[in-house]
Amino acid sequence: MNGSVSLALVHFPVLDRRDAVVGASVTNLDLHDISRSARTYGVQSFYVVTPFADQQQLVREIVEHWTTGHGGNNNPDRCEAFSLVRLVDSVADAIDDSTRFFGERPLVLATSARRQENTIDVGTLAGEQKKNRPLLLLLGTSWGLAPEIVRQSDHTLEPLMASGSYNHLSVRAAAAIILDRLWVALS
Amino acid sequence: MNGSVSLALVHFPVLDRRDAVVGASVTNLDLHDISRSARTYGVQSFYVVTPFADQQQLVREIVEHWTTGHGGNNNPDRCEAFSLVRLVDSVADAIDDSTRFFGERPLVLATSARRQENTIDVGTLAGEQKKNRPLLLLLGTSWGLAPEIVRQSDHTLEPLMASGSYNHLSVRAAAAIILDRLWVALS
Repeated sequence: MNGSVSLALVHFPVLDRRDAVVGASVTNLDLHDISRSARTYGVQSFYVVTPFADQQQLVREIVEHWTTGHGGNNNPDRCEAFSLVRLVDSVADAIDDSTRFFGERPLVLATSARRQENTIDVGTLAGEQKKNRPLLLLLGTSWGLAPEIVRQSDHTLEPLMASGSYNHLSVRAAAAIILDRLWVALS
Repeated sequence: MNGSVSLALVHFPVLDRRDAVVGASVTNLDLHDISRSARTYGVQSFYVVTPFADQQQLVREIVEHWTTGHGGNNNPDRCEAFSLVRLVDSVADAIDDSTRFFGERPLVLATSARRQENTIDVGTLAGEQKKNRPLLLLLGTSWGLAPEIVRQSDHTLEPLMASGSYNHLSVRAAAAIILDRLWVALS
């Protein structure tokens, strides 16, 4: 990925099953799976987005255990993966931090299980990447990113669907597939 | 996938971190994530392989909750996904059951984070699928499938690696990526 792709897992604002905008709690295994996938595909930073103090404390404890703590000593592969985690309050902060890091504002790409007005396919996206445009991928927990985040993004990646109409992948599976497709399109 | 791909998540025999052959415990989120990915990609059956009575009981309780129980009523998408789960004692039983279902012995495909003597790439595999040869994909929990399972399989899928040398994906992420690559190669 040329080190120019970052990824944010958004816990607020997201939708619940009734399309209300809510904050979701952090899932331990999301951090493990997505940081491991991010490390595999050469992602620059893995932003964990939550404004809630107790949830931020939980993220810090998990990350510390797997980097500087006992888990990290015992399992260097997890340490490498968790070293990518950056804890931020909001999507805006993830954009700001990645803009500072990349030296320019990244293309901000929402993901959604529904087709949106600003949908882009992975081939077109890979074309942007080949022009060395950095990229920030936003993944929503719960029932997905709130509409305001989708609208404010530059594009939304086309929904991940296979032959049928069932598209209820976990965010962990979706993150892995999106990184793999992007990597294949860039190779 | 023409309805001719099945998948087995193996909890015994698998390797631990010191390459000893052990039995791994069942992880709730493996069942959720992999059944959802299996449903998305049109997988026929999702075998959960464990010979341990207490672990089998746990799998039954989880599956019942999400199919005939409260979870299934409340969330039909999970019900659809969990309906694919078949609980079996061994890899041999998964092969027997899928042979009965498909009407012929499927191509048995191991997966491994290490390159094996019988390695096959996803393109060649898609070619077999196009000849309507049914396929049973074996995924190992813990540190991966025991060598006896890899040796007894017809082939082993090439390791999932991207640009670097890090290949420590979760089994949930690996399952999703393998199904997506196979689906793309068949499309």
